[in-house]
Amino acid sequence: MAQKPSTPKGTRDFSPVEMARRNYIFDTIREAFRLFGFRQIETPAMENLSTLMGKYGEEGDKLLFKILNSGDYLKGVDRALIDNNDTVRLATKLCDRGLRYDLTVPFARFVVQHREEIQLPFKRFQIQPVWRADRPQKGRYREFYQCDADVVGSDSLLNEIELLQLEDLVFSRLGIRVAIKLNNRKILAGIAELIGEPDKLIDITVAIDKIDKIGLEKVNEELAERGLSAEAIERLSPILAISGTNAERIQALETLLADSETGRKGVEELRTVVEGAEALGLKAQLDIDVSLARGLNYYTGTIIEVKALDAEIGSISGGGRYDNLTGVFGLQGISGVGISFGADRIYDVLAALDLFPSDSASATRVLFANFGDAEACRSLAIIKQLRGAGISAEIYPDNAKMKKQIGYANALGVPYFAIIGETELAEGTVTVKRMSDGSQSTVKAEELPQILKLD
Amino acid sequence: MAQKPSTPKGTRDFSPVEMARRNYIFDTIREAFRLFGFRQIETPAMENLSTLMGKYGEEGDKLLFKILNSGDYLKGVDRALIDNNDTVRLATKLCDRGLRYDLTVPFARFVVQHREEIQLPFKRFQIQPVWRADRPQKGRYREFYQCDADVVGSDSLLNEIELLQLEDLVFSRLGIRVAIKLNNRKILAGIAELIGEPDKLIDITVAIDKIDKIGLEKVNEELAERGLSAEAIERLSPILAISGTNAERIQALETLLADSETGRKGVEELRTVVEGAEALGLKAQLDIDVSLARGLNYYTGTIIEVKALDAEIGSISGGGRYDNLTGVFGLQGISGVGISFGADRIYDVLAALDLFPSDSASATRVLFANFGDAEACRSLAIIKQLRGAGISAEIYPDNAKMKKQIGYANALGVPYFAIIGETELAEGTVTVKRMSDGSQSTVKAEELPQILKLD
Repeated sequence: MAQKPSTPKGTRDFSPVEMARRNYIFDTIREAFRLFGFRQIETPAMENLSTLMGKYGEEGDKLLFKILNSGDYLKGVDRALIDNNDTVRLATKLCDRGLRYDLTVPFARFVVQHREEIQLPFKRFQIQPVWRADRPQKGRYREFYQCDADVVGSDSLLNEIELLQLEDLVFSRLGIRVAIKLNNRKILAGIAELIGEPDKLIDITVAIDKIDKIGLEKVNEELAERGLSAEAIERLSPILAISGTNAERIQALETLLADSETGRKGVEELRTVVEGAEALGLKAQLDIDVSLARGLNYYTGTIIEVKALDAEIGSISGGGRYDNLTGVFGLQGISGVGISFGADRIYDVLAALDLFPSDSASATRVLFANFGDAEACRSLAIIKQLRGAGISAEIYPDNAKMKKQIGYANALGVPYFAIIGETELAEGTVTVKRMSDGSQSTVKAEELPQILKLD
Repeated sequence: MAQKPSTPKGTRDFSPVEMARRNYIFDTIREAFRLFGFRQIETPAMENLSTLMGKYGEEGDKLLFKILNSGDYLKGVDRALIDNNDTVRLATKLCDRGLRYDLTVPFARFVVQHREEIQLPFKRFQIQPVWRADRPQKGRYREFYQCDADVVGSDSLLNEIELLQLEDLVFSRLGIRVAIKLNNRKILAGIAELIGEPDKLIDITVAIDKIDKIGLEKVNEELAERGLSAEAIERLSPILAISGTNAERIQALETLLADSETGRKGVEELRTVVEGAEALGLKAQLDIDVSLARGLNYYTGTIIEVKALDAEIGSISGGGRYDNLTGVFGLQGISGVGISFGADRIYDVLAALDLFPSDSASATRVLFANFGDAEACRSLAIIKQLRGAGISAEIYPDNAKMKKQIGYANALGVPYFAIIGETELAEGTVTVKRMSDGSQSTVKAEELPQILKLD
């Protein structure tokens, strides 16, 4: 094969340095999930297409990666589908399975399939890749990881307060300054009611969601295009203009939405969550944002979105409360609330702000030089002891020129280079060179762990 | 949907308890890989079909999961392929990508694609799932994890010695008693030469590989069926009968293979590896096994296979040296040696021998009871401090009956149950109940971390 092989479009390899950085993110998130009592599950990469289809809208169905059936996959396929080039329906005949598109639908399927074994409330976390046949572009991939934590089977708003604490812990540990934006879907419904357009809830939220980007005037233009009356638009303006502290915003919303039962309920929920979170204290900035909509069809209560304060990028985490997670699979009455972390965007933020820990590049603490069989034999014995003490160590496998061996240690960012040459072998010592400043000393083998554990 | 949803055939969900156990295995292997200086990479789940096809034989091509192209996938497809039901060739027109079948071919592709960035020797490890459209059966799945460590770009036998140490470390840490079987492909080639059947190397090894299962007599019958002369079979017998210590076996092989240059080279390599490994010491039993063949077409030097001594199961790890890993992608001269751990079989062995650590079931150290808003608010503040001290803690989210809350703690195996009721709230204390024996004490909140860190 002459052509250099490559990964499929929209997918990526991860080098050791990238893996160390990605693991830093995953480890931080995983550790936080565990501290909060979330329990890990995993689901298969492939799901039955019947599980996935129809869950992400018509566009989502097209973006599912479908897996060709094995064996005689043409058997029983209606040739008219082929002759008519009906590729959409034909695909569901050729393929029984697809790759998961997110972690939420497989989780819903999991809860229904294993409902007898699951103890409610069920706090689960899941960190796995998902696949979407989107057009690849900067920052958008066909394979990417999602990191989800959800509580199902509990309506308590304590869960929301806990999830805000969890967001706060993750981003403060990563050193990313964030604003957590908060809203409630019932407030949005109340607003639609209030301005006399309850049926236009989606149009309204889609439009006002853009207020940060395009400003109030353009939002109002769009609302008019979407068929809102001038009166309704006028009644909306004071709501979008709400400002001040969170307490002041809640106060203003309470007054404005006094006539909507749903709206009042939303404000009450928002108040409980905000007051609960603020009582515990947050390092993050917590902002009530009435224009926050975020996947409206899905959420039914609290809506959460997290933005980095020091990087120009979309949301890096988000979530909310939903009713009826599993209804589509025939199990009614299971509600929940959850959040998701976008590992790829978090990676970009950490890289842009130079926040990755510097020691995340090299796995090996010390590389031993190779001066030949006898020296290597002695080195391996010492290396074995170092590993037993939890210190990662290796020997350069070939008896190559010393320049090459040191170059290797340098290229890999190994902090210490150890030498057992003829003299050291005779005297039972090791010469250790610190790569950062070139300083070196000759010590007894027993002293080595002590030295290598420094700085 | 009335039908209960399920995972596709041959795939599995992993519950929190299973995940804790699987993570125990992956963490142990990963930690050992790191101590030996292997550096992690990941490759995408999907590869171009051109990367995968033809690498696993004709049967392997059929077992690849292929991904239907997006959009108008029928465009340009020769209808004759459809009319003739030529599903094999048609599949390569409908699909440009497939799911990875192992970690070795993607690794070879990685090395070629990134050869400018890679420092040789390159010690990489990779722990990721692979997919095969095999007929599912007990212990055989369509999605399973491989854990591979390879060194490429070094011919030194120190690598083999290190890999044996690595096998030893992993299994001793897991508490599994194993036998590591060792052979060398050059010895097998020497044997075929010696008995005058150098062209029948594959037939010979396929047959003698079964000697443990079917015995010498049946092996000889099979060899005759495969066209070996009676004389050749007779000359083979003393080789298969070699016994004694490793030193004695090496001595016997040296004598028997004295006339084969390849054979002598194989014995010399085997001696270096065995003596090197034994000088460092192994907890595992190390057995030279001349009948060990293991994927002969692939390996060119050392062959390694690991079996559990206390469980009836196939090999749980294995590997060997190969020449020309990347030749198929146009990059010549990159040889390497590697091993792979079978996580699913290791899981079965640990389960059968009851070797999983007992604390791997629960994530949460302490569950706080929920007695209502004021008590919950105080509990959350204490929980926040516990988490800051690295102790996983959670509150039961709903103010449910105490029996239900304790039942939840029991079901999840949470070791401590903490109560802040009216009295505790007034006195600034917490009542802690140890679930294992029901003992309880009331303490100041500050004393809690101390208590929870016990046993």
